[in-house]
Amino acid sequence: MQIVIIGSGNVAYHMAKAFSLKKIPLLQIFGRNGEELKKISNELDIPYSTENLENANLYIICVSDNSVESVSQLITKKDCLVAHTSGSLPKEILKGEYRKSSFYPLQTFSKSKELDYEKIPFFVETENQQDKHLLFEIASKISENVMESSYEKRKYIHLTAVFACNFVNHLFARAKEISDSQEIPFDYFLPLIDETVQKIHEIEPKAAQTGPAVRNDVRVLELHEQLLKDESIEIYKTMNHSIQKMYEL
Amino acid sequence: MQIVIIGSGNVAYHMAKAFSLKKIPLLQIFGRNGEELKKISNELDIPYSTENLENANLYIICVSDNSVESVSQLITKKDCLVAHTSGSLPKEILKGEYRKSSFYPLQTFSKSKELDYEKIPFFVETENQQDKHLLFEIASKISENVMESSYEKRKYIHLTAVFACNFVNHLFARAKEISDSQEIPFDYFLPLIDETVQKIHEIEPKAAQTGPAVRNDVRVLELHEQLLKDESIEIYKTMNHSIQKMYEL
Repeated sequence: MQIVIIGSGNVAYHMAKAFSLKKIPLLQIFGRNGEELKKISNELDIPYSTENLENANLYIICVSDNSVESVSQLITKKDCLVAHTSGSLPKEILKGEYRKSSFYPLQTFSKSKELDYEKIPFFVETENQQDKHLLFEIASKISENVMESSYEKRKYIHLTAVFACNFVNHLFARAKEISDSQEIPFDYFLPLIDETVQKIHEIEPKAAQTGPAVRNDVRVLELHEQLLKDESIEIYKTMNHSIQKMYEL
Repeated sequence: MQIVIIGSGNVAYHMAKAFSLKKIPLLQIFGRNGEELKKISNELDIPYSTENLENANLYIICVSDNSVESVSQLITKKDCLVAHTSGSLPKEILKGEYRKSSFYPLQTFSKSKELDYEKIPFFVETENQQDKHLLFEIASKISENVMESSYEKRKYIHLTAVFACNFVNHLFARAKEISDSQEIPFDYFLPLIDETVQKIHEIEPKAAQTGPAVRNDVRVLELHEQLLKDESIEIYKTMNHSIQKMYEL
């Protein structure tokens, strides 16, 4: 099995690393950014190129959504399988005469943050059973949690992830902006944040809700609005409105 | 030292439990809700009453913000210290001739969720040094992390906590609503959520941001808006707008 990873960003790096750790040989890591590729190549001992795409059986495209289509056209080989790793693109975005598939790891990737790959859910979609078995076999070497998913479902998985991860992280960023403005160390909030997440491993998020909005504590809601400005006040109002709608307050 | 806890909700329960675990004797747990008090009393072996407030040196009021003032008037004793546990009330909300203080645990409390009390930051505000030492001594038996905080600062600590905990939990609730609507088990998202939080132990939240808004991926943003409705679409738009403002996109 000859596998090439295309891309040099966060997803490409972590896929390459996961493959290396699980002893799945990579023929090449290919992309535009030579500097980033060189770093990955050095760290993981995988050949890289910015120019000559190797002849492989499987290409895994790990680039931003906007670039998937154009990058997919670089693969001119016909008898091969191509997968993209996007949560919100159909496999038909891939433009070529090869077999098309989706190989979606549900996780947030940053190069500077190590990951436990075994816990990452992988969602696979292929054109035929054989390719499905192949991608399941590969993903199962990396993770305990491999599933099939249609594009229809994957779109919603990605959307849910945006709420549960991207927006959550942005709340942390806005929270830190508030605490920084008062010279309150953000570390104080880490036990609270950890507990907020531990809680939903045991209790439904809807049942775990606490805070002034769900108590309909109008005095505190008004006090807080006076302390906020700009985007944070918009978030404050929108979130409180949504909480109050959910609990019919 | 004779200590009474007033209240029967989440905070009262966990304070009583923390005191019990750390062998700080409680004279009584007092409140209106006899049924809840009885449960706490049975579990922790602390006397309770709904009618006769015991004579104590320290009363810790653990009731909702709206009730702190009226509850504080039940304490007619003068030579004692009274503390409330609210993040957003001044100690002067307490109405009586006793010494007033604030004893604020920065955590989210649900009766059904066990907690590691040692990691909870406690913020203390008193009228004099002696009371400060007393509350520090007590809080230090429970937690490794005890600090002084003025009302001005506490307001912002509480506000930061609303963003980092209450709103984050609500995002989980809205995320689950989306995944439930497509019969996607919410458990799939737990490794992603865990990683989102682990990440900010190592990386600044602003630097950890991922997702379509920070990539300015207009196609995905429009696709997602088509999948959403009602409050979730308002959250979606507000959060994306705020992300794009933060990164000047």
